[in-house]
Amino acid sequence: MSSTLHVSFVAADSGLWRVRSVTPIIGETLAPAARIDVREGAIATPEAVSAAWILRGVTSHPRYVTAVERDGLRAVQAGLGRPEATHAALIPMTKSDAWWALAQDERRAIFEERSHHVAGTLKYLPAIARRLHHSRELGEPFDFLTWFEYAPAHDALFDELVGLLRATEEWKYVVREVDLRLERVAP
Amino acid sequence: MSSTLHVSFVAADSGLWRVRSVTPIIGETLAPAARIDVREGAIATPEAVSAAWILRGVTSHPRYVTAVERDGLRAVQAGLGRPEATHAALIPMTKSDAWWALAQDERRAIFEERSHHVAGTLKYLPAIARRLHHSRELGEPFDFLTWFEYAPAHDALFDELVGLLRATEEWKYVVREVDLRLERVAP
Repeated sequence: MSSTLHVSFVAADSGLWRVRSVTPIIGETLAPAARIDVREGAIATPEAVSAAWILRGVTSHPRYVTAVERDGLRAVQAGLGRPEATHAALIPMTKSDAWWALAQDERRAIFEERSHHVAGTLKYLPAIARRLHHSRELGEPFDFLTWFEYAPAHDALFDELVGLLRATEEWKYVVREVDLRLERVAP
Repeated sequence: MSSTLHVSFVAADSGLWRVRSVTPIIGETLAPAARIDVREGAIATPEAVSAAWILRGVTSHPRYVTAVERDGLRAVQAGLGRPEATHAALIPMTKSDAWWALAQDERRAIFEERSHHVAGTLKYLPAIARRLHHSRELGEPFDFLTWFEYAPAHDALFDELVGLLRATEEWKYVVREVDLRLERVAP
């Protein structure tokens, strides 16, 4: 994903995704909401859509993966919108100032050589589709918004994936994380 | 510079910096303007300030430099706002889709191992202060806005610096670049 796509996650009373749970993992939680509407393209304002909150992000080029890792990811990862992937998760996350003060080689070493962010999660990707959105440079409250889609049969596999990531050295730099679980409803 | 600061470069009839020249290096140029007003913080809209154009960017963490290079840069680079640095340049630049499709290790190899973006420019930095602003994820027409400040006595040194950068392999990925030269006026 090297092109940029602006995406707004709108917490309101309508939307394709029903909120099953909102769990604060670390730091402040988010206000409850009935539905999440995922809007691609133009950025909506809260006033325009009567939203409890809106989180915005933008897809961009990968920051850490090598060409070999990128090709490995492309070979196994699923796309969004699979008919069977009726469960989803939205995980907004902020990393510490200490993380952002690190140089590229220091962040890379924590991300992959020590936390195995790519190598350790490849096996989950055929079942669990994900898209990363960058928010830090947009002046948002979170640095990243990651969106995941998977079949209900893979609920336990998804718990295993996020458990694995939260046990890494990289995760020690997370200062705020909220875990929203969602279910697709008839439009 | 790891914190984020939103900056708007406003082309209008007023502002601290008088435009001396607007030179298209590659691709479409920018409309002429008398002055550039550099506004930090809240993002202005063109309507609010009667501007010919506004370019927006955000400072962020360095994307390529290692810890050793970061420390080397910190040791020599000057800050903005030096009283003697009454000349400035604003260089908006866009890189190609081919650049953004490269993986991190491929971009790093072009940036430093083959183009010596850091090692080759260190010697200029005590005289020429610069600040990089990222614009690509903001949906802007340019990917980057680089702002430089230097004393008039260093005009030729600045020409040498940009000439050196434009002769690199990295620069072959630039698809649009405009070079604005400016002079500080009494506020």
